[in-house]
Formats: sequence, structure tokens, C-alpha cells
Amino acid sequence: MIRIEKIRGYLKENGIDVALITSAPNLFYFTGSAPLIGGYLVIDSDEEVLLVPELEYEQAKEESKIPVEKFKKIDEVYEYLKRFNTVAVEGSMSLSFSKALKEKSGIKEFKFLDEIIKELRMIKTEEEIRVIEDACRLADIGVMTAIEEVSEGKREKEVAAKVEYIMKMEGAEKAAFDTIIASGYRSALPHGTASDKRITKGDLVVMDLGAFYRHYNSDITRTIVVGSPNGKQKEIYEIVLEAQKKAVESAKPGITTKELDSIARDIISEYGYGDKFIHSLGHGLGLQVHEWPRVSQHDETVLKEGMVITIEPGIYIPKFGGVRIEDTVVITKNGAKRLTKTERELI
Amino acid sequence: MIRIEKIRGYLKENGIDVALITSAPNLFYFTGSAPLIGGYLVIDSDEEVLLVPELEYEQAKEESKIPVEKFKKIDEVYEYLKRFNTVAVEGSMSLSFSKALKEKSGIKEFKFLDEIIKELRMIKTEEEIRVIEDACRLADIGVMTAIEEVSEGKREKEVAAKVEYIMKMEGAEKAAFDTIIASGYRSALPHGTASDKRITKGDLVVMDLGAFYRHYNSDITRTIVVGSPNGKQKEIYEIVLEAQKKAVESAKPGITTKELDSIARDIISEYGYGDKFIHSLGHGLGLQVHEWPRVSQHDETVLKEGMVITIEPGIYIPKFGGVRIEDTVVITKNGAKRLTKTERELI
Repeated sequence: MIRIEKIRGYLKENGIDVALITSAPNLFYFTGSAPLIGGYLVIDSDEEVLLVPELEYEQAKEESKIPVEKFKKIDEVYEYLKRFNTVAVEGSMSLSFSKALKEKSGIKEFKFLDEIIKELRMIKTEEEIRVIEDACRLADIGVMTAIEEVSEGKREKEVAAKVEYIMKMEGAEKAAFDTIIASGYRSALPHGTASDKRITKGDLVVMDLGAFYRHYNSDITRTIVVGSPNGKQKEIYEIVLEAQKKAVESAKPGITTKELDSIARDIISEYGYGDKFIHSLGHGLGLQVHEWPRVSQHDETVLKEGMVITIEPGIYIPKFGGVRIEDTVVITKNGAKRLTKTERELI
Repeated sequence: MIRIEKIRGYLKENGIDVALITSAPNLFYFTGSAPLIGGYLVIDSDEEVLLVPELEYEQAKEESKIPVEKFKKIDEVYEYLKRFNTVAVEGSMSLSFSKALKEKSGIKEFKFLDEIIKELRMIKTEEEIRVIEDACRLADIGVMTAIEEVSEGKREKEVAAKVEYIMKMEGAEKAAFDTIIASGYRSALPHGTASDKRITKGDLVVMDLGAFYRHYNSDITRTIVVGSPNGKQKEIYEIVLEAQKKAVESAKPGITTKELDSIARDIISEYGYGDKFIHSLGHGLGLQVHEWPRVSQHDETVLKEGMVITIEPGIYIPKFGGVRIEDTVVITKNGAKRLTKTERELI
């Protein structure tokens, strides 16, 4: 597998004995299998093996593109790793596991695989883009369900439950993250996960959701008003829409994520709402909902063909409410292609 | 708060400058708030504060029982921690974050809070038990929904989608974990998350699910047959049921988790299926689906009043199918009280 060969090349270049990968997204990325209760992908200079608990063996063997071996006790994993001195791991590895590796396997030095994995995963293959496109189609169905379900008197949580049910019935394994249905004053909370609040007439309602499908994610946000929007609601909606459209049009190979964030931020600032756009423009998306590149003032990644990012400006006015409009897009040589396609002119 | 005072006492006894807590369950446990995109609970010898990103400030301030301060950049957190040398953290902290703390805050030594947190969280308060009881009531509704929905020709995923929808409509925030609906040969996979497989007549169907409600979890498993069970299905069902009932009756203060596991395991072994019971008897449950104590051959915790555990023996015969019966129980001075109450005589 070319992905594993890249890791092997990295080990060689840096004089590292072995790579140990344990997070679910990376286990799936490198082997095709992500055992529910854990697995240990070991890549050394000659061979690679996925070690899994007995309980997961049958399923892992079926899914994995590389050899699988089972263990009865985690001590067998520590034993297996005794032959190595320097190990490259993911930065997400827990302190307690790294402590056990030091004590039980005699690992002397830890290096990090994050940079090389980031470089690999950040550029999606055609196959990955196809799966994300399917996940985005499910998110479109989800957001359309939300638009239909939102109505006076209904609880936010009921809308979210219906959204997730329909996405699953249409093929999603689950929601990519807790569905946000934030109405009225709650729409000013960027992370207003659906609550028991009842939706009332005149509410701005921010609906932010996604589907998890074949290990990949999608992410979309739309905002509507229950009934007729008032002047101020309409005003901030138009500003966010302009910023979002302009950013989508500007996202193409060669521009940096910081520049892209600035394009949307400058528009919102010109209208006087710069201090109400309190998060970054977006984020990379794939096996995780939030991955590289960050699309923010603190990231200067140059966009390349095959990157998948979200573009999601927003304006949040405490107590009054908020508006966010978000699409998942893939960067092609001709610019950004929207993978979530629900209409954006909703207010 | 008494919980925070316990941590402070632990710091004092061990000569540690400060405790830093960052995992969602523990943030909630110690402050009443678990900010979605992260938070940093800092407890030193005199005071405690929850540091949260600006985005989470309003919500955290509303929820937290201790003082909350906001930061714009994570660097402010590193800066704040510069005054300390030894820090006690959770073993789940990532290697990359601990590296940043060393480099940017000059932290010299890391100690672990896991033991003291385990001792605290393992014994549930009456208030916690009431919430878990509510979560278990939702799990009962979920499993009853599954029993109604399972039928010839339906896909496992459709059943799971309906289960999760109904639990949410009844008040659950979400499923505690990916709902397992494992039918036919898939019922022999202890972690057979609902798939696209269609349920057929004669299938054993293992239904393992739970609700997440007010930060707490529940967990229940029932097994049924579509149509009439055959002799062997009935045989293994009866054995698992006997083992489960005996273990529930035996769970009381004073017995160890290993002894409890053995009571169920011995029954299954006597009938000749010992090698088909391929996991441990159960696990502690609370803010996390799997917590302390482990109820297994590798754990000798003495059961105490206020512990909440699952009791879930199973028999898994590759290609033929499997049976698992599970309840969540709380240990009282008079023995185990089942918090999940769905009937167990289903085959």
C-alpha cells in the first residue's frame, strides 16, 4: 500500500525503528479497518501488521488490507514492541499509554507522525471525494428535513431527532456530530446543540448538521426565520450570504487559508459586524469532522487540488440571534466545487 | 465543592502544585459544564477556575458552579500555567498537549489524577443514580422499540435508526453508543453495530443499546429470535439467562468483580460453552459508557454501595449466532437493583 510505504519512507529518513498507529481514523486510513475496541498498527522497516483483541479478529481480518494478528492480553502488544527503541506515534496518543510503552516495552524515544499523516490525509483521493460527496448528499437531505420540520411550538430536539432519523434511513451510519438546531436567542450560540427550547414565531434558526458515512463526514449549515424576517434579520443574512458566496468563489489552488478567511471577514467587517464573526471561516473535513487545513487567521496552508474544506461565515448578536451559512467544498483545479448543494437563498 | 476539595487534598498530600483537567466527563463532574470545543479546569492550592475559549464563555458561565474565565488564544492558557512546576493531569491527556505544556509553560513534572478521580466517580451519589435511572428508562424504551421493529426483511440499520429516534423523542440527548442490532450470523459478533444486512426468519437478533441523558449513560442488551427458536437457540438462551440472573442476584457489597465474573463464567462453562463467552461480564457505567470497575477476571475491585455496573454474559458461536442479556444495575446495601427493567424471558 502506497500510504504505508510513505510512512516507511518517513521512518527510514528519520532513523526511527517503528511506527505505531492507534486512532480509529488513522487505522481505517492505513488498513481499511478500525476495530471498535481498539487496534494497533505496527509498521517497521520490513513489514506491517494490525494487532487486534481476539474479539475483533474476525471482523478486522475481513476488512483489513494488511495482515492481522490477534492478541488475548494487551501485554502481548507490549511484548511485541520490545524489539524497538524509537517509536513514531500520533500526538493524540494518551500520556498513560505512552507511559506504559516506556515501562513495559522499554521504548526510549517518541517521535510524532502527525506532520506526515497530515500531508497524506489533507489531499483526498478521487475515491475519498466520492464517499464525502455521498455523505454531503445525506447532509443535504438532513438540512432539507430540518427546514421542513422547523415550526412554531416544536422543540429543537424533536427537529434534530427527525433529521438524524431520516439521514440514517437514507444510509448514514450516524450523525457526524450532535445536530445543532439553535433558535431565537440560542442562534447566537455558534454551538447551540438542539435543546428543549420551543421554537417560536420570528426566531432565527441555525441548523448545522452532517452525516457520517463509510468513515467519512459531511457538514452543512443553513439559517431560516420562522415566519417573516424583520429588517435586521434580513440585513445580517444578506451580509453572511455575500461573504459565504465570495469565499466559495475565491477558494482555489494557490490561495492560502488565511487569505480565504480574510475575504469573508473583510466583507463582514465592512458592514460593521467584524467583531460578531467570532470563529474561523472553516476547517478541513474527511475522516474527522475537523481536520486540516484550518481555514483561519492562524493557518497559512496553500489550498491544493483535492483538499476538502468547509466555508462557514457567521454573525452572532447576543440575545438577538445569529446567522451562519456553510457548505462543504472540494478544491479542484478550476476552483471550489460545492459538495453540499442545498439552496442558500432562504431568507 | 467537595469534589474539588478532594482533588486539593490530594495535591497537598503529594506536594503537587496544580491539577489540570480537560476531558469532557471530568469537566462536567467537577464544574457542571463541559464546553464542546474544550475547557481547562485549573485547581491549585487556593483557587479553582475553568478557562474556556471565548466562543464557549456565555454557556459555560451559565452552567459552571465555579468561576469561569475566557481566553482568546490557547497561548493564554500556557501563560497562565507558567507559575506551576508539577502538574497532575488525566492519563487520557494527549502526548502532543503534554509536550506543549512542557515547552510553553515550562511544566517539569506530570503526575496522574486517575486514581483519585476513579475513587470519586466510582461511587455514585443519589443524584447521579437518579439521572442514570432516567437514562435506563430511556434504554428500556429503546429496547422495546427494537423488539417491535425487528421483523423479516427489515435492515438492521432501519431498526437502529428507529430506536435512536424514539429514545431522542422521549428525551435522550443521543444514543450512548452506536446501537448494535446484530442478526443471524452477525449476532455472533459481540460488537455487531447495525449494518445493511436484512433480518431473516429464524435469526437470533442481539440488540444492545443505551441512551445518553444529562451527561450520563445507560446500557441494555436483549436477544430475540425472529419466529420460533430452534433447539440450540433455546439452549444457549437459557444458559445465558441463568448466568445473568445468578450474577445479578450475587452482586452485592463485599463481593469482588472477579468473583462476580466467575459466577456467570462457571455456569456457562459447566454447560460446555466457556470458550464461547469471549468477553468480560460487565463494566462500570456513568459519565462514560465504560468506566470503573471493570467486571472481569482482571479486576478485583470490591463492590460497594453506590457503584453502577452492567452484567452482560453472552455465548457466541461463529456462523451460528449469539445471545447476550444485559442489565445496568446499582449496588445497594441489599444487593443489586436493576435499573433497566425490560423483561428477560424473551425466547
